[in-house]
Amino acid sequence: MGTRVVLDCDPGHDDAIAILLAAGDPSLDLLAITTVAANQTLEKVTLNARRVCTAAGIDVPIAAGCARPLTRPLRIADDIHGTSGLDGPDFGPPSVDVVDGHAVELIHRSLPATVVATGALTNIALLLTRYPEDAERIDEIVLMGGSTGRGNITPYAEANIYVDPEAAAIVFGSGVPVTMVGLNVTHQALVTPEVVARLEALGPLGRTCAELMTFFGETYRTMFGFAAPPLHDPVAVARVVDPSLVRCVDAHVEVELTGTHTTGATVVDLDGYRGLAPNAKVAVELDVDRFWDLVVAAIGRLG
Amino acid sequence: MGTRVVLDCDPGHDDAIAILLAAGDPSLDLLAITTVAANQTLEKVTLNARRVCTAAGIDVPIAAGCARPLTRPLRIADDIHGTSGLDGPDFGPPSVDVVDGHAVELIHRSLPATVVATGALTNIALLLTRYPEDAERIDEIVLMGGSTGRGNITPYAEANIYVDPEAAAIVFGSGVPVTMVGLNVTHQALVTPEVVARLEALGPLGRTCAELMTFFGETYRTMFGFAAPPLHDPVAVARVVDPSLVRCVDAHVEVELTGTHTTGATVVDLDGYRGLAPNAKVAVELDVDRFWDLVVAAIGRLG
Amino acid sequence: MGTRVVLDCDPGHDDAIAILLAAGDPSLDLLAITTVAANQTLEKVTLNARRVCTAAGIDVPIAAGCARPLTRPLRIADDIHGTSGLDGPDFGPPSVDVVDGHAVELIHRSLPATVVATGALTNIALLLTRYPEDAERIDEIVLMGGSTGRGNITPYAEANIYVDPEAAAIVFGSGVPVTMVGLNVTHQALVTPEVVARLEALGPLGRTCAELMTFFGETYRTMFGFAAPPLHDPVAVARVVDPSLVRCVDAHVEVELTGTHTTGATVVDLDGYRGLAPNAKVAVELDVDRFWDLVVAAIGRLG
Amino acid sequence: MGTRVVLDCDPGHDDAIAILLAAGDPSLDLLAITTVAANQTLEKVTLNARRVCTAAGIDVPIAAGCARPLTRPLRIADDIHGTSGLDGPDFGPPSVDVVDGHAVELIHRSLPATVVATGALTNIALLLTRYPEDAERIDEIVLMGGSTGRGNITPYAEANIYVDPEAAAIVFGSGVPVTMVGLNVTHQALVTPEVVARLEALGPLGRTCAELMTFFGETYRTMFGFAAPPLHDPVAVARVVDPSLVRCVDAHVEVELTGTHTTGATVVDLDGYRGLAPNAKVAVELDVDRFWDLVVAAIGRLG
Repeated sequence: MGTRVVLDCDPGHDDAIAILLAAGDPSLDLLAITTVAANQTLEKVTLNARRVCTAAGIDVPIAAGCARPLTRPLRIADDIHGTSGLDGPDFGPPSVDVVDGHAVELIHRSLPATVVATGALTNIALLLTRYPEDAERIDEIVLMGGSTGRGNITPYAEANIYVDPEAAAIVFGSGVPVTMVGLNVTHQALVTPEVVARLEALGPLGRTCAELMTFFGETYRTMFGFAAPPLHDPVAVARVVDPSLVRCVDAHVEVELTGTHTTGATVVDLDGYRGLAPNAKVAVELDVDRFWDLVVAAIGRLG
Repeated sequence: MGTRVVLDCDPGHDDAIAILLAAGDPSLDLLAITTVAANQTLEKVTLNARRVCTAAGIDVPIAAGCARPLTRPLRIADDIHGTSGLDGPDFGPPSVDVVDGHAVELIHRSLPATVVATGALTNIALLLTRYPEDAERIDEIVLMGGSTGRGNITPYAEANIYVDPEAAAIVFGSGVPVTMVGLNVTHQALVTPEVVARLEALGPLGRTCAELMTFFGETYRTMFGFAAPPLHDPVAVARVVDPSLVRCVDAHVEVELTGTHTTGATVVDLDGYRGLAPNAKVAVELDVDRFWDLVVAAIGRLG
Repeated sequence: MGTRVVLDCDPGHDDAIAILLAAGDPSLDLLAITTVAANQTLEKVTLNARRVCTAAGIDVPIAAGCARPLTRPLRIADDIHGTSGLDGPDFGPPSVDVVDGHAVELIHRSLPATVVATGALTNIALLLTRYPEDAERIDEIVLMGGSTGRGNITPYAEANIYVDPEAAAIVFGSGVPVTMVGLNVTHQALVTPEVVARLEALGPLGRTCAELMTFFGETYRTMFGFAAPPLHDPVAVARVVDPSLVRCVDAHVEVELTGTHTTGATVVDLDGYRGLAPNAKVAVELDVDRFWDLVVAAIGRLG
Repeated sequence: MGTRVVLDCDPGHDDAIAILLAAGDPSLDLLAITTVAANQTLEKVTLNARRVCTAAGIDVPIAAGCARPLTRPLRIADDIHGTSGLDGPDFGPPSVDVVDGHAVELIHRSLPATVVATGALTNIALLLTRYPEDAERIDEIVLMGGSTGRGNITPYAEANIYVDPEAAAIVFGSGVPVTMVGLNVTHQALVTPEVVARLEALGPLGRTCAELMTFFGETYRTMFGFAAPPLHDPVAVARVVDPSLVRCVDAHVEVELTGTHTTGATVVDLDGYRGLAPNAKVAVELDVDRFWDLVVAAIGRLG
């Protein structure tokens, strides 16, 4: 029996692959998928989660969560993920539906588990506020978000944290074991043409993934000048599958909440300038080859 | 049948009188009492709510809510309210208990209603985050908190807002009709010796209230140099009983979240410097005589 | 021989009267007038200082200083003081000129003296940065600026401090004895019709002052709903003439530099919330009758 | 005749080499050396400038400037540069002295020139405030400071900017052409054993430099785990000697002034997130081999 996992996400191209990895890898027991507004509106990302599960034949409960950040207006990333939040392939109408109730209740009922969070951290912050006792029942929060260096929505802020920095501050301050998988490591997971070719060779689901990656690659090429797009979110799932794939260091992390130009930055004290005890494991290195093997194998298993 | 009211509070001496006014005034239908950490820990303020209801024979559901602010550590006011949070009288063991479940669920089930909030706004912010649809089912949030001028915990911040400014920002930004009853008006509600005498004349419950006011008056005398202590929280309840008691003006209110020396200040734009549409009614004047008549009558009715 | 005084100002209607009081009161030895951008551009306020000195026959060196705040763009108050910065009377071309060199050099050469500052504090901050040793040669900085309560340009900020808060922070942190004469006390110095009548009765210079006050009163009536305008700046001069006119208390003052809605607020810890040693005397009460006698007598003496 | 250059510095090990490069390279006409508190107190860094000029036989005017940042307390880096600010070699008593007057006056008199700033930017900010017309007479400000990525005193702030961020904000906002040579590029200028050997081979002055580098290397090894220390400040001088040595890109740069954890960060918008016009050239790549040739040749020429 695998590691019990809940995936809280905002699909999103890389979230889609994260769902497939979480559902397709035999070492994980995916208990629930929950959605949160960030890459696109809650309505759209929830529809996208249903589309992905339909396409891949994934049968786990899905619940929608928070439609907006705790204190700030929602900022979506339609420039990256398109109007639907998952532009590229032609998904038909989904055949799987959401369960009744709020994402937070579904996560609560699914514990104990490891929570993988690949969107804004609003749902997780709400869970910890509403059910503080769940801090003891979450084995670990492995989140895709932040950076030890530069950001992708402002010079120092990564989008998931930027969208709801107060939620991120709640998570990092919660006392729950937190692993931060940030841009510094996810930018090592580049979807090269060779990776796309491997996906295409897998069959219909693989081809859908390849189409997703082609759209995603195009926006990364246009907006950031990347030759190949970084596949952020699955790296967080991969860390749960096999911690040895993603090397981490212990560090103190603060979320900047008051900066005029830096709000949403994850301030990772790798050098111990402040002398504070670490409150997170921070991913610094990815075993790229083994990562892609894991992703391709999981999609192949589902398809 | 009276105005449906939920009272979210952190008793606290003035919260205690607010409970009595809300339960004893015939124009209100008090549906629930919920508690939140601020004046003291959640455990203590919840015990105090039970004590007050026991002493006054109040039979409404009580539920405990958030034990700490959304993103900040809890700061209690034991310098004002004592070790128990309700120092002064000798309360015996309470005979009423809390109901199962979290304050937020009890408030949610009690709607539609007017919510009177006399502590930190953590529970209300959590309610609006968890059940955004409840924004349409709350008739009004009447809160004791903030100030149009100086504060009482830092030069510009009032304690309820200071304890959880992010929660306050959520409330003021929620779109729910908000009435702010701040220090500028509650400092008009001074518990003079004449008021204490009227309470004492009411019988046992009145004498308990007089003892509470005597302790409260002593801390206000020592800490702030007040000749008589201001009875903040009941003014918010009085506004619901009879809006004509508390004159309000429309204004735009922002909660300062990033100030080095001003965080938690309610920045009330009475002069329209920013040209923004009002998002709150802000209390500016109390009909003091009629207020005390209301309070004394309610306690007399219960006692 | 009188108290040696340098007046750093940005005329401005109330600065104009401050110049007259500083030059006309026999207890002061006005050594220099320096100008700084705030109420209007440096060019305009310098012209206005020359106009006032011409009209009143004042013969002291005038020098222009900083044309903009240290780190922020200049925000002028043409809504209050008009296009010229001194709208109302018809001043002819001035017959007195500025001296060569920067305001900071003129102040430096004039020390030891008391510095009265009635505009943004840019020049004074620059002086203390360029000549740190002058901190020992300034007897006192008496500044019109700030407030213990509400502001006049944002809810909590007064205009002189708001225009250059970093300069104000330098002044309050300099170790020089500072007396803050803020809105809380200058709003006691209302130019009533009776005061205007006394000015008009003084002759030509008095009539010019009355015209200034009439324009100033009109903007205060329109913008703030004041029945009579507050004559801020002369109160700072009056404090130097006779300290018993302006009662002060010792307090710790911080200038808010990072607030989203409160930058430029003077955070005056009257209640000792922070337990820090006082760094300023803060004016809290004006002897109104004696103040007007002083102002009227000084103008009468000049006219 | 060479490029007219003023060097404003806080020696400091790397500042010392910057002085030697500025004085020894034939393409530069070094007009003045000015000092500012940062690496150590003003007194110590001024003594160190005199020591370096004595050791190298450099005969240019030296003047001391600001002893503390504009608005913040001074934070020195004695952990990096030792008690003297220039620990390592045994300097005898200096035979060159400072000239009369403040650094700002010496810089002012030396213009037009390129200003190379390798310490906190306090002097330069003061110059631009006191003599705003000098903005037209400075050909360029080439500063060592900031970073496009991580910092060296907090996770995102570099020490020169962190010590006086308001001064840095004044410089970047001044309209003067600014070139920022930050950690991202100076960390390419590593003083390898091979470089030390080349210095030692130069003779007495070279051996003094080698001793400086040995001490500096030791603190970088201990504090940051660097195998070889980065020689920050001379990179800024090298950019003036030969712009082709240091490749730059145009970008908008803001200095963070209000962050709780990020104040002093240079927020370099390399990706154009904000769509603002560039206000600086930002160094991104160093021609390492040619850089060391330049440094070694200059020291050899002096020695």
